[in-house]
Parts: sequence; C-alpha cells; structure tokens
Amino acid sequence: MSNEKLTPRSENYSEWYNQIIQRAEMADYAPVRGCMVVRPYGWALWENIQQSLDRMFKATGHVNAAFPLFIPMSFLEKEKEHVEGFSPELAVVTIGGGEKLEEPLVVRPTSETIIGYMYSKWIKSYRDLPLLINQWANVVRWEMRTRLFLRTLEFYWQEGHTAHATEKEAKEETLRMLDIYTRFAIEEAAVPVIPGRKSASEKFAGAVHSYSIEAMMGDTKALQAGTSHLLGQNFAKAFNIQYLDEENTLQYCWTTSWGVSTRFIGAIIMTHGDDQGLIMPPRLAPIQVVIVPIYKNDEERSKVMPVVEKIKTQLQNFRVKVDERTEVTPGFKFNDWEMRGVPLRLEVGPKDVEKGSVMAARRDIPGREGKSFLSQDDLETSVANLLSAIHTSLYEKAKAFRDSHIFDPKDYEELKTVVQEKGWALSWWCGDPACEAKVKEETKATTRCIPMEQPGGHGNCIVCGKEASEKVYFAKAY
Amino acid sequence: MSNEKLTPRSENYSEWYNQIIQRAEMADYAPVRGCMVVRPYGWALWENIQQSLDRMFKATGHVNAAFPLFIPMSFLEKEKEHVEGFSPELAVVTIGGGEKLEEPLVVRPTSETIIGYMYSKWIKSYRDLPLLINQWANVVRWEMRTRLFLRTLEFYWQEGHTAHATEKEAKEETLRMLDIYTRFAIEEAAVPVIPGRKSASEKFAGAVHSYSIEAMMGDTKALQAGTSHLLGQNFAKAFNIQYLDEENTLQYCWTTSWGVSTRFIGAIIMTHGDDQGLIMPPRLAPIQVVIVPIYKNDEERSKVMPVVEKIKTQLQNFRVKVDERTEVTPGFKFNDWEMRGVPLRLEVGPKDVEKGSVMAARRDIPGREGKSFLSQDDLETSVANLLSAIHTSLYEKAKAFRDSHIFDPKDYEELKTVVQEKGWALSWWCGDPACEAKVKEETKATTRCIPMEQPGGHGNCIVCGKEASEKVYFAKAY
Repeated sequence: MSNEKLTPRSENYSEWYNQIIQRAEMADYAPVRGCMVVRPYGWALWENIQQSLDRMFKATGHVNAAFPLFIPMSFLEKEKEHVEGFSPELAVVTIGGGEKLEEPLVVRPTSETIIGYMYSKWIKSYRDLPLLINQWANVVRWEMRTRLFLRTLEFYWQEGHTAHATEKEAKEETLRMLDIYTRFAIEEAAVPVIPGRKSASEKFAGAVHSYSIEAMMGDTKALQAGTSHLLGQNFAKAFNIQYLDEENTLQYCWTTSWGVSTRFIGAIIMTHGDDQGLIMPPRLAPIQVVIVPIYKNDEERSKVMPVVEKIKTQLQNFRVKVDERTEVTPGFKFNDWEMRGVPLRLEVGPKDVEKGSVMAARRDIPGREGKSFLSQDDLETSVANLLSAIHTSLYEKAKAFRDSHIFDPKDYEELKTVVQEKGWALSWWCGDPACEAKVKEETKATTRCIPMEQPGGHGNCIVCGKEASEKVYFAKAY
Repeated sequence: MSNEKLTPRSENYSEWYNQIIQRAEMADYAPVRGCMVVRPYGWALWENIQQSLDRMFKATGHVNAAFPLFIPMSFLEKEKEHVEGFSPELAVVTIGGGEKLEEPLVVRPTSETIIGYMYSKWIKSYRDLPLLINQWANVVRWEMRTRLFLRTLEFYWQEGHTAHATEKEAKEETLRMLDIYTRFAIEEAAVPVIPGRKSASEKFAGAVHSYSIEAMMGDTKALQAGTSHLLGQNFAKAFNIQYLDEENTLQYCWTTSWGVSTRFIGAIIMTHGDDQGLIMPPRLAPIQVVIVPIYKNDEERSKVMPVVEKIKTQLQNFRVKVDERTEVTPGFKFNDWEMRGVPLRLEVGPKDVEKGSVMAARRDIPGREGKSFLSQDDLETSVANLLSAIHTSLYEKAKAFRDSHIFDPKDYEELKTVVQEKGWALSWWCGDPACEAKVKEETKATTRCIPMEQPGGHGNCIVCGKEASEKVYFAKAY
C-alpha cells in the first residue's frame, strides 16, 4: 500500500494530502461523519507535540487540569458573542440514562464558559492570581466540510485558560503564549510561522483581541496553526470571576485563552511533505532513525545483524526502529519509510560491516546527494548532527518557499491576482471590515493576520485607498 | 481551608473522603450533575499514574491511538450482552449543528465496538497480528449515584484493545495486563491488590472472562482497581474482525480489553489517607518533598534561604516544592502539606544552617517518631532512601490492615456477620449464581474475585454446602 506512487502535489494537492495520511497510516475515517481515528503513527507524532508544548507550558508556570466534557446550554448563552459564534456548531446531548434531560448538555466546543464558572468559585483574592491552567482535551464542533486533521467534528487540542489581576498581565500572558507557539513551530516542527493579530471579523467569538501564528502550506494556502486570545473582562463579567485586591476592593479578573490542536499535524504534513510522502521534522518524528539491514543470504545476515544491534544500542537516545521484515525487499522498505517521512535512514550491509561504516540517507534530500557514509564510531554525534542539519534545512526550505510566495501588490487588481494565483499578499489595510469583506467576496481570500512585525509609517489601503497604518496578510486559507 | 480538621474516618468515612478531596484540592463538583473537575493537584497525580502505566504498556509492545468519542447507536446493538449491559447508562447526542440526527450518537461508555469496527478494516492477515493498541480517553456512563473519582458520569481512563490470532495468545495478553496492573498497584502506588477472576454475573458485558485487581479501602470495603477482559471471539464475530492465516484460511480474531481509570485515585486516597489528610505514595506523588524554611526575622531568613536553594538544587531529581509563603506560619504550612499528603517534609532553620543539617518529617509516621535529622551532605541518597522506606511502610501497613480484615467464616451465618461488620470473607463457592445472588440480597456483599492464588483441593460452598473447588472473596464494594 505505502509503496504505491502518490498523486503528485502539482496534479491534485488535496488528493495528495488525503493519500499521504492513509498510506503513512497517520489517520483513518471513522464510521461517524466528519470524525477521525488517529492511528498509532499519527498519535505518536501528537504525543511528541504534546510533550514538547507541555514542557514549555510548565516552564512558564502553567499546570494541567481536567474540566467536564459537558456544558449546560445556559452557560454558553451568558457571553453574547460567544454563543452566536458557536451555536451553529454544537453537538447536543438530550438523553441521559434513557431519559430526556431537563437542560440539554452541549459537548464542549471550547471551555471558556465552564472554566469561567469554576474560576469564579476558586478565585477569592489577589493571592489566588494569576491562575494558569491548561487542559489537554477533545472538543467537538459540528463542521459541515471536514478534512482529516484540518477540520474534524471531534479534534484534540490543548486549551490554556488564565485569570489575572490586571489587563497588563493578561496582555503579557496572551503574547507570551503566542511567542511560545511561534518558538515551538519554528524550533520543534521546523514550520516557519508569522505571529500576528487577527482582524475583528476573524477573532475568537468573545475575545477582545485574538492572535495567531500563520503558516504557508505547500499549495501556498495559509493555515492558522495556533491562537492566543485576550478575553478582557468579557468572560469574567459573564461568570462573575472576581477577586479582592490588596485594598480589599472587589475587582473583575482579566482572562486569556490559547490553543493548539491536531490541526498542527496537517500543517506539518503540508509544510514538509513531498511527492514521495511525509517528511517528519526530526525533533517531533515518532521514528527519527530507521535502520535497514541489507543482506542476500543467511551468511551475510549473520554478519550484518550483530552490527545493526550494536548501532541500535549506540543510538538509544534517539527514537530508532530496526526494520527486520523478511517478507519485503530493502527497496520496498526504503519507499515505505520515505512515505512515512522518517528523517534519517541507515543502511547496513556486508561491506559496511567490513569497513566499519554505515550508509546514511537523508529523507529531505533525494538521491545520491542526500547520502553519506558514516563511521560506526561516534555514530551518536554524527546522527545528532545530521538530524540537526535536516531540521535546519527543512526550516530554511519552507521559509524560502514561503517568502518567495509573499507579494506586495501595487494595486487592488494585482492583489486579486496574487491571492488567487500566486500566494499571499502583504498590503496596507485601513482596518475597515468592509474592505476585508470585499476581498473575501471577490477572491475568497481573508485577512490572515496583522503581523507583529510592521514596517512602520503609513500607506494607502490596498482596497479603498484611505490612509492605513498597518499591513495585513491576505490569503486563501484552510 | 486545608487547616480545618477533617471529620475522623471512624466517625463518618464517607464525609472524611469528600472533605479530603475538597481540602487537598484534588477535585471539585462540576455544574453538571455527577461530573467532576479534576483540579491541578489531582490531575498531577493522574499524570504520574499515566506515565507509569504508559511506560509499562509500551515496554510490552503496545502503542497509543485515538478513536472517536461518538459511536453510532447501531454499533452497540451488534453484541447482545454488551448493549444490554450498557444501554441504561448512555448519554446520547441527538442534535448536531442545529439539526436532529438521523442516527443518534452515543457518547462512548467504552470503545470495544468502534475499535472492533476499525480493526475489521485494518486487519487482513496473520502478519497484522497481534494488534496491540491503547488509548487514554474520557468516557461517559450515566450513573445515578456518583462520588468524586469513584463513580462519575464522565471519567478518565486508559482502555487497551488487542486482537490476536489464537485464543491462547489472547488469554496470555489478558493475564499479562492483569499482572501489569498488579505490579503497578503494588510497586508504584503501594496499594496491595488481589488479582483474580470475576464471577459470571460480575463480568464485563460481552466478555468471556473478566479479571480484576481488588483492593481493600480503609473502611474495609472493596474497590475494583483495574480490569482485564478476555473477549473471546464475541466482538470479532459481531464486527467481522477476520484475518487470513498462514494457510490462507479466513479466521476470526481473538480479542481482549483492559482498563484502569481515575477511580484508582479514590483507591489511593482510601488506602493510605488518615485523619490528617491524604498520604501520597512517594513514586506517584505530585510533590515528593516539600521544603519549609523556618525563620523569625529577616536576618535568619537571609541565612536560611540560600541553604534552601542549595538543597532544592541537590534534590533536582525529585519533585520538590519550596513553600515560600510569608502570610502563613510554618505550623499552618505543616498542616497544609499534611492534608495534601506530601510524603516527606524538610524543615530548614537557623540551627540547621549552623549544623549543616535538615529536619526530615515523614508523612506516614506522625509525631516525633517520624522525624530525623539529615546531613546536608549526600541529601539525595538519604531522601531517596526515606522515600523508598515510606513506600514500603505504606504498602506493609495497608497489607497488614487488609489481611487482618479478611476472614474465613465457618458457616453462612458467620459469613453474613463478616461481610456486614468485619471485612472480607474468603470462602468456598460452588460457582452457582444463585448462591452469589443470595449473599448479595441478604448482605449487599458481592463476589469480588476468585483469586488466582487458590488453596487447591475442595471444600463446601459457604452458601449451599455443595462441593466447591474454588474460593472467592465476598465483600461490600465501592
């Protein structure tokens, strides 16, 4: 199965994406419309993403907890924008234990409301602040058009929810988490991202400001890979989250929320994958190194296997798989692990045994150019160096691709051509939702984010020509 | 809050249990009936349980994956016993995206059916077997009487689901996981458990045989702390999980499932806790060592704190908390950490600074007897030794308590007294469900398990007097 050729990206990007997920056994369609099964290889990647983010959260003082799956319908209604944003997407439990429920229960689409309710019980004084809690959970949004990892009815994510004494602290937290997401994407996943602020029409339902990291996929569409929301006092007022300050005055808290989901797996696939299959970023790869023994007969096998075992032991600090299958050829195995995107393949044959060498093949550089002989001595260092080089090269390649597909159109007509045919446009925008809506209607491109890094100065809105003080990315998006 | 005295166990065990959970901030009641919020301190314990079990699962060849929360109602109906067992407890989604669903979706109470469906798609040949998958997930059972951790509408667990080519292998797997649970309980949680087989009436709905580990709580009631089920070909036939064997003949698989849930936290609380609060088993404790600096003024503080920092660095391989609060007294802190069950407290005062010592207080031995002075040199070893001693002593104490509350009643009348007033009865049982039902009706005690360790030989059924070849535990249970 995984040895069949993929539909090339240039031919049908969407088909390529679906095939890769199936053939690399990352996920499968569930028997319930729009739901997915994350298969062991896909889940192992998610576990590595979890560990990596969790470490960053804990290092910045956050702790994990678990809040209920079910939320009373009335809770959602307490924050006006929130309920308007989410009510079309709800799954509702109406029967429990064989009886009709008095109040229907919503399967959480996100947990601001129920966590807000608990925070109002727990927070009494300024000494209880800041409260910095995250949860790893499943959430459900009743989407009509679904795609594995990118948009599924049920998905997995982390959602951080924090409460602070001041607006300043809440703002700092919102940007701190945006920064953590940016660093995670770049340093761990080799996915170049642009951090920025969402426009009012693209922000989270109930937020004062939403921030996101935006990544460019291999077809030049944008993908929102993580979000961080400054919720102001909206949820604090809706749920009465109050504290006594040092002067014994009752104050409303300032809250934030932020999340990264299994969608990020889609971002990894579409940032790095090629026509041979997945390419896993080395620091998150479920298998970092695959060792393929090469032999023609039992005699060769008996020479090769002890060396393979020795190498495996040397590389115990890496995630290593030895492919010992006997029913398939080495060539089949090469294709198989290429499809699965293992960053580094080591081949060990009789000649390597004689020479004390190993043949290393980089997944990110096809053909002879990506191959080199390594000495069996000091293999740990040379493998670490190679994995590090692969990480850097994946990142640089993706960044170069992205940068070469970002344009600065001179007028509205060119903007339309850019977002419909060429990639992203970075343009001056006056901030008027009407201009944004016009672009969306005429091109299907939306504002992705107002990047944190701005050129400064002023320009003319690419749509209406009025004075503008910020540039925004326009792009079609997943 | 956590400095208030608990209701003593002897006075009201159930009240003591509820108070401890609230005051140690392990969990809280959710605004939805029967649901809980697992607070950070409780979740940190669960994360340690997860890591410990996950390591054991992976070491025995299992991998993790994620299957959907929603199961079509029709799936449950495919296995007759299964649907009968679970249908009274289901939460049902009938509305999605604002519309009534054609087929209602069940929120998973357990995942044999949906996993069985996927296995039938994935398994083709004997080469795909055994398939050894686990998932960490939330499940929902619509229970009428709920207790935090012990029985909640939504709870967290791991559920392993495996498929094998032969009955023998499936049986081995079932017992392997029972053994892993036994070792986990004893070696990690210091909870003595008895592994055994469930009676037919107590087994999992759809299983051929169910096995469990049973623990005795501080009020002598039994608690089922983990289960492992041999499912035979029941689910394989219901979901058509078939494989081609080496002779190219189509065969049904043999499957198993096994699980441990957040209920285990209840077992830890009720096995080790005392009238001062929780006692966390050292290997799973979220905080293994708390350091309380002791000083009367700034001058003393400036001497003490550098030593506290030094000690914290020495103990970096442990989970250490320094209690630096200035608004409460050391005495308050002692009570606080005792309530939270931190196994070891280190006090550092000006005299300790002079002498190069630290005062260590064991949570499991109250008063002077549990205290000792440790040298600041080589503290890592002495702390490791103390934690290890605490583990052993907790286990021995719980085991001695359990063993002294297991009786061998001479007749049915004495059995009734034992299970109603004294503890567990280990008695010969003929295996007739009628005898078991009689005990249950007259005493509310049920058969807990037929222990793997049997005396051998024969005896007379404690209920009907007929010949019996196995002994069973009768006890009231959570």
